[in-house]
Amino acid sequence: MKIAIMGYGTIGSGVKEVLDMNRAQIEKKGGEGIEIKYILARKEHIPGVEDALVTTDFSVIENDPEVELVVESIGGIHPAYEYIKSCLEKGKHVVSSNKAVVDACGSKLIRTAKEHNCNFYFEASVGGGIPVIRTLYHNYAGENVTEITGILNGTTNFILTKMREEGSSFEDTLKEAQRLGYAERDPSADIDGFDTSRKTAILLSMTSGNRCRHEDIYTEGIRNVSDIDMAYAKALGYSIKLLGSVQTVEDKYFAYVAPMMVEEQDPLYPVNGVYNGIRIVGNCLGTTMLYGMGAGKLPTASAVVSDIIAAVRHKNNFQGIGWSDKMIEIEPMGGNAFRYFLRIEGTEEGIEKELKSYFVENGKVKVHVLPGRKDEFAIISDILFEEDFLARLSAFEDETGRRVFHYLRVNSASEE
Amino acid sequence: MKIAIMGYGTIGSGVKEVLDMNRAQIEKKGGEGIEIKYILARKEHIPGVEDALVTTDFSVIENDPEVELVVESIGGIHPAYEYIKSCLEKGKHVVSSNKAVVDACGSKLIRTAKEHNCNFYFEASVGGGIPVIRTLYHNYAGENVTEITGILNGTTNFILTKMREEGSSFEDTLKEAQRLGYAERDPSADIDGFDTSRKTAILLSMTSGNRCRHEDIYTEGIRNVSDIDMAYAKALGYSIKLLGSVQTVEDKYFAYVAPMMVEEQDPLYPVNGVYNGIRIVGNCLGTTMLYGMGAGKLPTASAVVSDIIAAVRHKNNFQGIGWSDKMIEIEPMGGNAFRYFLRIEGTEEGIEKELKSYFVENGKVKVHVLPGRKDEFAIISDILFEEDFLARLSAFEDETGRRVFHYLRVNSASEE
Repeated sequence: MKIAIMGYGTIGSGVKEVLDMNRAQIEKKGGEGIEIKYILARKEHIPGVEDALVTTDFSVIENDPEVELVVESIGGIHPAYEYIKSCLEKGKHVVSSNKAVVDACGSKLIRTAKEHNCNFYFEASVGGGIPVIRTLYHNYAGENVTEITGILNGTTNFILTKMREEGSSFEDTLKEAQRLGYAERDPSADIDGFDTSRKTAILLSMTSGNRCRHEDIYTEGIRNVSDIDMAYAKALGYSIKLLGSVQTVEDKYFAYVAPMMVEEQDPLYPVNGVYNGIRIVGNCLGTTMLYGMGAGKLPTASAVVSDIIAAVRHKNNFQGIGWSDKMIEIEPMGGNAFRYFLRIEGTEEGIEKELKSYFVENGKVKVHVLPGRKDEFAIISDILFEEDFLARLSAFEDETGRRVFHYLRVNSASEE
Repeated sequence: MKIAIMGYGTIGSGVKEVLDMNRAQIEKKGGEGIEIKYILARKEHIPGVEDALVTTDFSVIENDPEVELVVESIGGIHPAYEYIKSCLEKGKHVVSSNKAVVDACGSKLIRTAKEHNCNFYFEASVGGGIPVIRTLYHNYAGENVTEITGILNGTTNFILTKMREEGSSFEDTLKEAQRLGYAERDPSADIDGFDTSRKTAILLSMTSGNRCRHEDIYTEGIRNVSDIDMAYAKALGYSIKLLGSVQTVEDKYFAYVAPMMVEEQDPLYPVNGVYNGIRIVGNCLGTTMLYGMGAGKLPTASAVVSDIIAAVRHKNNFQGIGWSDKMIEIEPMGGNAFRYFLRIEGTEEGIEKELKSYFVENGKVKVHVLPGRKDEFAIISDILFEEDFLARLSAFEDETGRRVFHYLRVNSASEE
């Protein structure tokens, strides 16, 4: 099969590298060889690539009937969307690693693929090398998926892991991650949770079969996670992870992105460094967890190549991985229920009654104090709806005159 | 699609339960409803099942052209093999949860399916609800898979986890597992490693694309793992797991089943209780780990149902999940290299030189003594080929007059 690669950054060049490196295997498994006919780039010369392959003109690719498949690794929504759409309209399969365009335009592109009896694949858009899209499509096809919760961003997981291991502050650890190339110069997309939010939206669309807006997903990044939070987490047997989570309860959909306390028995607890993990809960399968490299050149490129092989195997039939145009509503964040970890000013003396009535109505209030810190203590609340919790928090501060320095939600694999 | 279920034990009845429970979801995802037309059983009455569905006569199913798919959950090789074969020959898709028949007859059944343009699926035969077969087929299609190592048997993992948590002996824990229904009255297939060995053979066939014999896989069960081994493991930061492992090095294949020391940073380390975990290493994807319920009625049945939906989606085309008739050779166990954990009689005094020259040529010998035990100590060896290790072990015992009470191989995710 002759293919074109559009966009020759990390992923695009990685795809060429994987196709070269594993040529024999790919030909054997797909049943035919894969030949790169064009690489669409901004400049006419790419070091290490034959000039004959390189073009700066999309119309050459679009109008060449020999090209049966196009890899899109340009990134962003425009012109990626227009390019993908016009390739699909010409009956060319498209494989994309671009979560922005999959999130924003996925259902339109899937419909276009269907209309032209070709495929739009996007395994690499979520979880890099982790096989989550096809697992949801194939293995969870007969399941009612009640929850998907994942560590979906390697940069933030690297930072949080380092903070835990070294006791360092967020700012220092971010700088180190930037120095090592694990975080971008403008790190906002990662650390403010937007990358995770887009991937969470794709997972919600895959499981619901319908479209959603990542802008409707409550999204909180890790900027406010401090070394003090991390010290408590360690002492209490938690790890702090940036989670993207989706829940389905009857016909209602919940989704959020937030840094959370994760319990030791949770399969996401030991997922460290740049690794990602995705926990999926189904009504019959129970809990499954997929673990692997969530980013990086070769893992992501290998996921793209698995999509190329799928297209070879499904040359003449539309496979239908994806979701419909119908938009679903995501319930407001206030409707989610959590236990909360709270760091409260002072000592518990004099406010035992308020701690109990606002946060721990069931059982005894367990107070945690970090060695050497007299200015604050922490508690874990009962399970409360977020809306209710926020009202209680504000009333507690008013009544006691104590500040709550920070709170983090607790992700409870066992209770959900 | 009209289907038949052959064999109505745990899995067969689970399939009916999942089809009933998730009817709407299954119809939506597959594009049509699934109707059970026959259940093949030994008796004409099954409590809770309409008599009209039940038959004791296979030929009724085989000869009904309305039946487009047959679920085989009889178990064992005969008559499962003959039944599957004759259904495929009539163009009926077959979904099997039966590792014995997949291991022994997989390539023949896959060829028969191909000849009759239907599908033979077997996702549930390895890892129950863990999506490993399709992940290898789809997501690892373009990878050179260098290693697959898994905790593939829930019974043994339950026993080993309990032994670690409670410090109990193998015999007592096995009895408890039998009492709780986690181990069978005749537990040999699980605890002697044969179940894991069959699953390991299927994984090797999936990754190599060729046939192998599970009888050629070195197989050691967990009968000889003692509470003392477990106490050392805990003290040294390991857990002991029964692993099935497959390695590919150039064009050579290695495979074995054995209880092994697993390091804390290995993603298999925290896989406890009846959960299974499968670590897959590819040359581009790096390490992926799939975690979930490896057995149990509903998880396994849900994997069967995912295969049923796949057959609906691939009604008229052979998909080719499987392997060829070509038999591969598995290298002898002696050609594998490991670090070894050894428990040696007495104290190290007087044999420091021999410990060094036989087992730890590189660096210092680290001796581990369990609190309160003066009659033995433990060391971890250099990486040695098994064949060489066994020769050294025997020479060491001869030369020092000391017994080696037990040894266990160390599985090193990082070094392989």
